[in-house]
Amino acid sequence: MGTMKAIVLEKPKVLKMEIRDRPVIADDEVLVAVKCVGICGSDVHYYEHGKIGRYVVEKPLILGHEASGEVVSVGKNVKKFNVGDKIVIEPGVTCGKCEYCKSGRYNLCPDVKFLATPPVDGALCEYVAVREDYLFKVPNDVDYDIATLVEPLSVGIHGAMRGNVKVGDKVLILGLGPVGLLTILAVKAFGASQVIAVDVQPLRLEAAKELGATHVINAKENNYKQLILEATGNTGPDITFETAGSKETNKTAFEITKRGGRIVLIGLLAESEVPVNINSVVDNEYNVYGVFRYANTYNKAIEVLSCNLEKVKKLVTHRFKLDEAAQAFEFVRENKDKCIKAVIVI
Amino acid sequence: MGTMKAIVLEKPKVLKMEIRDRPVIADDEVLVAVKCVGICGSDVHYYEHGKIGRYVVEKPLILGHEASGEVVSVGKNVKKFNVGDKIVIEPGVTCGKCEYCKSGRYNLCPDVKFLATPPVDGALCEYVAVREDYLFKVPNDVDYDIATLVEPLSVGIHGAMRGNVKVGDKVLILGLGPVGLLTILAVKAFGASQVIAVDVQPLRLEAAKELGATHVINAKENNYKQLILEATGNTGPDITFETAGSKETNKTAFEITKRGGRIVLIGLLAESEVPVNINSVVDNEYNVYGVFRYANTYNKAIEVLSCNLEKVKKLVTHRFKLDEAAQAFEFVRENKDKCIKAVIVI
Amino acid sequence: MGTMKAIVLEKPKVLKMEIRDRPVIADDEVLVAVKCVGICGSDVHYYEHGKIGRYVVEKPLILGHEASGEVVSVGKNVKKFNVGDKIVIEPGVTCGKCEYCKSGRYNLCPDVKFLATPPVDGALCEYVAVREDYLFKVPNDVDYDIATLVEPLSVGIHGAMRGNVKVGDKVLILGLGPVGLLTILAVKAFGASQVIAVDVQPLRLEAAKELGATHVINAKENNYKQLILEATGNTGPDITFETAGSKETNKTAFEITKRGGRIVLIGLLAESEVPVNINSVVDNEYNVYGVFRYANTYNKAIEVLSCNLEKVKKLVTHRFKLDEAAQAFEFVRENKDKCIKAVIVI
Amino acid sequence: MGTMKAIVLEKPKVLKMEIRDRPVIADDEVLVAVKCVGICGSDVHYYEHGKIGRYVVEKPLILGHEASGEVVSVGKNVKKFNVGDKIVIEPGVTCGKCEYCKSGRYNLCPDVKFLATPPVDGALCEYVAVREDYLFKVPNDVDYDIATLVEPLSVGIHGAMRGNVKVGDKVLILGLGPVGLLTILAVKAFGASQVIAVDVQPLRLEAAKELGATHVINAKENNYKQLILEATGNTGPDITFETAGSKETNKTAFEITKRGGRIVLIGLLAESEVPVNINSVVDNEYNVYGVFRYANTYNKAIEVLSCNLEKVKKLVTHRFKLDEAAQAFEFVRENKDKCIKAVIVI
Repeated sequence: MGTMKAIVLEKPKVLKMEIRDRPVIADDEVLVAVKCVGICGSDVHYYEHGKIGRYVVEKPLILGHEASGEVVSVGKNVKKFNVGDKIVIEPGVTCGKCEYCKSGRYNLCPDVKFLATPPVDGALCEYVAVREDYLFKVPNDVDYDIATLVEPLSVGIHGAMRGNVKVGDKVLILGLGPVGLLTILAVKAFGASQVIAVDVQPLRLEAAKELGATHVINAKENNYKQLILEATGNTGPDITFETAGSKETNKTAFEITKRGGRIVLIGLLAESEVPVNINSVVDNEYNVYGVFRYANTYNKAIEVLSCNLEKVKKLVTHRFKLDEAAQAFEFVRENKDKCIKAVIVI
Repeated sequence: MGTMKAIVLEKPKVLKMEIRDRPVIADDEVLVAVKCVGICGSDVHYYEHGKIGRYVVEKPLILGHEASGEVVSVGKNVKKFNVGDKIVIEPGVTCGKCEYCKSGRYNLCPDVKFLATPPVDGALCEYVAVREDYLFKVPNDVDYDIATLVEPLSVGIHGAMRGNVKVGDKVLILGLGPVGLLTILAVKAFGASQVIAVDVQPLRLEAAKELGATHVINAKENNYKQLILEATGNTGPDITFETAGSKETNKTAFEITKRGGRIVLIGLLAESEVPVNINSVVDNEYNVYGVFRYANTYNKAIEVLSCNLEKVKKLVTHRFKLDEAAQAFEFVRENKDKCIKAVIVI
Repeated sequence: MGTMKAIVLEKPKVLKMEIRDRPVIADDEVLVAVKCVGICGSDVHYYEHGKIGRYVVEKPLILGHEASGEVVSVGKNVKKFNVGDKIVIEPGVTCGKCEYCKSGRYNLCPDVKFLATPPVDGALCEYVAVREDYLFKVPNDVDYDIATLVEPLSVGIHGAMRGNVKVGDKVLILGLGPVGLLTILAVKAFGASQVIAVDVQPLRLEAAKELGATHVINAKENNYKQLILEATGNTGPDITFETAGSKETNKTAFEITKRGGRIVLIGLLAESEVPVNINSVVDNEYNVYGVFRYANTYNKAIEVLSCNLEKVKKLVTHRFKLDEAAQAFEFVRENKDKCIKAVIVI
Repeated sequence: MGTMKAIVLEKPKVLKMEIRDRPVIADDEVLVAVKCVGICGSDVHYYEHGKIGRYVVEKPLILGHEASGEVVSVGKNVKKFNVGDKIVIEPGVTCGKCEYCKSGRYNLCPDVKFLATPPVDGALCEYVAVREDYLFKVPNDVDYDIATLVEPLSVGIHGAMRGNVKVGDKVLILGLGPVGLLTILAVKAFGASQVIAVDVQPLRLEAAKELGATHVINAKENNYKQLILEATGNTGPDITFETAGSKETNKTAFEITKRGGRIVLIGLLAESEVPVNINSVVDNEYNVYGVFRYANTYNKAIEVLSCNLEKVKKLVTHRFKLDEAAQAFEFVRENKDKCIKAVIVI
């Protein structure tokens, strides 16, 4: 069986390397040697605050849920994987029995065990055991660090499917963190003809341009809403993705979207309530869709990533080793203007 | 050609009877002798304030858009109607050419001419000319006063279709004005198994019970949210209809609806913005649908009304003659606790 | 542990009672004392021919998959059921891991274990072990024999959902076996305003009338297609359900459905290919939906059954005891004109 | 007003140039100087047989409905176009009032006036008058001959929308006439990851490859079905487009599509009925969608065409002048193996 190194959050801002037992796989599981783990905003939030909403870190927790790796052994009932396969991990294992699981919305399963969501340990360690159906092969030309982007890209894919993005749509994306940036690729894959990307960080706006946004607009410009409208030919976007989780961007989404359009809400806010123009929803007959994680997106995300390999390579701006994890988290926390995505290489 | 009587809003709170020319019909139009006109909250709002949002009464306006009548003559290209037919009027004539009209969402047509929405005159008069395709026959056993309910019922039907109500759904309806009450019939027709109706007026709660609500809850009860939850077996409703247009009911909709559920927003608010729990939309992956008037609902609404004739008869609580229109408007304005729907009989 | 009686198909037309071991339940399973089992056309087909298509009875098989019963013991992880609960069994246990299971179409799971589909034994025995999530409580006022109808009704519910039946639809049902008859209830629950039921057996046409069909038409009438058209006001039905599995009814479905309408195909045919008017599908822009069993329908079916208890009671025309099973199968096979649904009472 | 040249089908196989009055525009119409007209299979069919199904050429008819042109004058109510605009014509003018028009499926309007469908004249002439809402601007870099492809591409776009093509779909296209070939572009725009193109003509297979088909398979190969299956990883395609209108390809569509998949039927057949495996539809729970022309596709098609300008240029294999129309029709009729799309340049 043996042991392995793991990065454990002992209490807020205290990350330590520990030696843990290697996981033992069940018959339908695969043992994965973790190769790369992306640091997500939620990881950093647990690191800083020890909790996110109702999820509280009550005992030492391994962080990390954006993981790629290599298959090192397989349970006896595993059919689709062989030792040596390059894979990514879909991080939420669901019950398979509740009404959400049975109806195709397994991301809403109340009994989900999601990596690095207390009390379930994450993937910032050398080995994880994963049920076969939550693993997906990635092509050889997708490097392990890039492969970790499948997870945040999945959120964008799920949003694009919820919002029914299709050929000819004019799309506005508010907020260009990794999810917002990868949503550019997602909506273009579904046929969006115009992608207007909005943020306040020049680094992110530049990245958006390289990913194929047709317009990038800095929300620090006084007239940025006017610029958005003009970009759409003054109709407003057919569909707006809110990924920033700010009061201001939520306000904008509900006032600028085209009559009859769709709003996809992805970003979580610090505030429990923000002012929304409900009359605008009624009068414009908007469809508004919340997005919580994703379901049935991994193959699609891998496909989209593979078709955009050159473009996405620049999104991984920083790499750290496993024993540099503490520095990595501090770096990410303090350099949001310089870092798009940092990856821990194991 | 001749003349006719019409009830004209000259300025806020001043309704006068005037003599106007009878309308002349075009080749694809029908001349309708108006028989009954329901008084809608929007009529009363124009009566009191002379405007609703961006719609301002700038010259004397005939009010009324919930109208039934009898065909008295038909244009030479009219094929579906004959003199003597009992009909109801769908009150918005749309352009037929814009992207909304072409894609089946004609209720969003920017060039709609909607009865009693300035500067378009309404139906509180003896005769109106209506394009053939905006008229619908009603069965003989539906009286003219009851037939006016097709219009507000259409809003409920449209909401039920937008929200995809189906067999087995548990439905919450917040607000029991005529639209909220008729939404009870709409959602039951689409298969809802449970309808929880909420208001503060005993008269309306009683009406809800008679229309088939499985639970009626007075929102003045301190624990009314708890009562709603219990009624649903503690999951919350699959779908919530907000028809009250209040801050409190909007807040409730976003906190009580079941995970993965749907919220249908119908009521317009006095406030331009109200606090909404956006995180609840994201975390619960709600679908939120605005409802603006209706499209392709009239045949369905007539069908539903016909199947519930006994139940709906009690909704028309007050009747007035055309020359009592001024008193009728005053009465409705001052007796919201006693009056569900008042109808002007011509 | 103990033993139990079971009715086993040894070879075509040879049914014998055997003594078998009672099943032992897993932690997430429930032991059900079977109370009633409906005899389905597929059971009779196995009885007569020993196979259906690619499914061949290669070793003695317990038949029966339309089962109701009472909970007699529960596994330690079972949460929703208690000893004494009255339940029905959803007969297909799926893998929970394939793309169909994950996306809400678990009825298409290639690894499903379906009761009485070789090599999986059915429910014509005293006890079965069933995973918790495939059991559904039924109200006390639904008798055990009637409760077995939840299974065939589920097919109709699934068809109504696939075909998106809604308020105002005119529905044609071709073929009035148990599934066709119960589809009448299903489509009415989803809001169908008109149900035209067609068969050649007077017994079934009469049953259709009692279940609420608005028109019943005997397909032996020379002009039966004309009668269908007239019933719909000469447009043809909005949606046609083909449940008879005959060449003639399939032909009719593709020629009589309204332009832009939907066709739901439920019945399996003896022929591997039948002539279809493909040009009619193209020119009329039909949507055609196949229906294979059901998914996520049991709660809806129980709801619909409960609301129509008086009407459905007449569908169970014959009852037999467990040790009369052989006679029951012979009776059903030879009396299709006299028997709608026969149930074995255990 | 003046006169103009027009190519008129006098009787089968007799095309003559005639001098006709130039059309006079109504207030909401635009006078278009026709620049290019593509020759469609239906034009050739009228040319050869004088009819298509129920549409019979009873008096001399101007052919042609795939038309691009330049605006030469506008009616007084026209708002969106100016003299000199480069445009394409959507060839079916619908009533705007029937249930199909009102619900967004105006392609099914029974009162449509479609160019070159008897008794409505087509566009093979110097000038046509078109209602403003049936004209669409094309970018300057799209040449007039290429612009005529918007019409057949629209069929593919409509098929992709009916069939809900999305990211990751494996698509099979049976038949590579202009519609089949352009469907390659359509499905790729909606996100298809794999496009398997099948025909018997090497010219068309080569064109498919250049348009981006990931696999091209000659149906003359004995094992072509096996090759299709292998290309999809042995699951069969998620979605199959039948555009050939042959008995064989229809048979293939119903036997090779993936379980749970979709079949889009576009091609009209010479036979009124062909054998179809209905059990395969039931057992695999297919969705089958007929496609009749298109609705709300022109902007999308222009978008897709613009993004693939280099690729599509090779599809226009032959050009003829207006006074060579008779030769053009003969050429097209006799050279289906050499000609993909012929265009008349006016």
